[in-house]
Amino acid sequence: MDLITVEEIIAAAERVADTAVRTPLLPCHWADPDRLLWLKPENLQPIGAFKVRGAANAMARIPEEVRPRGVVAYSSGNHAQAVAYVAKRFGVPATIVVEENTPAMKIEATREHGAEVVIVPITEREVVAERLAAERGATLIPPFDHPDVIAGQGTAGLEIAADLPSVELVLVPVSGGGLASGVATAIKARCPGAKVFGVEPELAGDAAASLAAGQQVHWPATDRTRTIADGLRAEPSELTFAHLRKLLDGIVTVSEDEIRSTVALLAHRARLVAEPSGAVATAAYLHRAADLPRGRTVAVVSGGNLQPADLAKLLAV
Amino acid sequence: MDLITVEEIIAAAERVADTAVRTPLLPCHWADPDRLLWLKPENLQPIGAFKVRGAANAMARIPEEVRPRGVVAYSSGNHAQAVAYVAKRFGVPATIVVEENTPAMKIEATREHGAEVVIVPITEREVVAERLAAERGATLIPPFDHPDVIAGQGTAGLEIAADLPSVELVLVPVSGGGLASGVATAIKARCPGAKVFGVEPELAGDAAASLAAGQQVHWPATDRTRTIADGLRAEPSELTFAHLRKLLDGIVTVSEDEIRSTVALLAHRARLVAEPSGAVATAAYLHRAADLPRGRTVAVVSGGNLQPADLAKLLAV
Repeated sequence: MDLITVEEIIAAAERVADTAVRTPLLPCHWADPDRLLWLKPENLQPIGAFKVRGAANAMARIPEEVRPRGVVAYSSGNHAQAVAYVAKRFGVPATIVVEENTPAMKIEATREHGAEVVIVPITEREVVAERLAAERGATLIPPFDHPDVIAGQGTAGLEIAADLPSVELVLVPVSGGGLASGVATAIKARCPGAKVFGVEPELAGDAAASLAAGQQVHWPATDRTRTIADGLRAEPSELTFAHLRKLLDGIVTVSEDEIRSTVALLAHRARLVAEPSGAVATAAYLHRAADLPRGRTVAVVSGGNLQPADLAKLLAV
Repeated sequence: MDLITVEEIIAAAERVADTAVRTPLLPCHWADPDRLLWLKPENLQPIGAFKVRGAANAMARIPEEVRPRGVVAYSSGNHAQAVAYVAKRFGVPATIVVEENTPAMKIEATREHGAEVVIVPITEREVVAERLAAERGATLIPPFDHPDVIAGQGTAGLEIAADLPSVELVLVPVSGGGLASGVATAIKARCPGAKVFGVEPELAGDAAASLAAGQQVHWPATDRTRTIADGLRAEPSELTFAHLRKLLDGIVTVSEDEIRSTVALLAHRARLVAEPSGAVATAAYLHRAADLPRGRTVAVVSGGNLQPADLAKLLAV
């Protein structure tokens, strides 16, 4: 299976430059002195998540004459918003298929960008999206299982390598594995001495189980939906799993309580609103030190879409 | 009176580059289409506020042989943390004089950076700081009334001009006026067509009253402490007022309710934790459209230090 290359990520960086924010690395003075920490705040992207990078790269790769037929996406939320946002910027009609448990805020945000939203049971998302795309001659932009999407997400890794060439450990959330695949490709090419670790919620730890088993282990979707981290309920595809197996130096899991308290800590100490999925990499830094290499660490804060009332509850803990 | 020059800000930019984060401009897709909005998130600086810029520039300007005698600062909070943080990085002892109403979180954060903290009534801050500096041969770093501090704060304006040369309006909070003076100097030099407006809380609207009167009007400190925006309770000095009078195109005030609701909006829509003082420029964008020029707007989010419980309360409104 062909893995993506750093050259594809470099090409993607140019394509996404007008759409994605070039996020800085934020140094954390409250970190361990021998495990200095920087945050990569992808929650500050226009739609509140890194997903805009992959969506912008995939959109830019659609031939101009094909674009008017539209794009279709299925997503647990942030990818939907990203495709809707990017489609609006490109003047392309978008149809988004979301699962019925998607937070109302994410559905509303998708509609605000002018996209048509179709709500279906989680198990039918992919099938319905593929059928709609076929019917309309539209282009399907998958949330992670596509080289252009992975390359787009990898631009975050390219920026980490450029801003902190001496990085020794990068912590990145794993769900479908697009972000981790892209970031690991960029980091391994640019900072060969650095380790890249994936992070999952224990309650959706299928990728950790798969990497431990040396082959993909499938968890029922109903198991994966138990975690509060609603953006981390997908499982890798064959393509992303091949990247993870080759490129990750390890993977750790964090508990629901650790995720919750890290959302509060990020608001308090880093002035960032992170959704639970966006907090897992920082949670691993804080609570899995024994399982991680020491040294200069970057944790990717991947998204920040949560209801204000839910954030208020997490702050009160 | 000599005002600072853009050349001094350019020189400061090099001095602060290792200490301050190069913050991006964050586009807000929820803004008015004919008043596009970008946020300049200075709450993401290491100590949670723009103040680190001025402190770093002032520290770098102290001759190396003088630095071991230490630095002294007085501040309503964020400047204290900034001087303490910068002093630690430079290996210089710091003494911080704070007023007795300073939030506990800000005092604690200052001590965490290794500084000695002296708590006094608000009216004695300056006198005590000057006495301590004289006794110890230490250098006083004032919160705004110094060309090096103003030039340091101005580096934020230089970045705005570099990232959005077509900016038409910059909204910046006014308290002592150091940030507004520096940012306006940079913007007027680099983007001569752009307007710069100051923003104050109505309850601490002394600079607005002064600019309307054409000369400084002094409000009692007890009046200025009424606002929830605890970082905006100072009044300009002669030096900063001279900058504001020459450089600002206008100044608007916002209500306490507008400040509170904007803290919630910034968390929800921009994924930023802003303290009330940090939210006033965005509040002006949202609630003073009739009093402001239209066009491409940047609002400076100047700080993000507030207690998690206070943020939780504001989110619940």
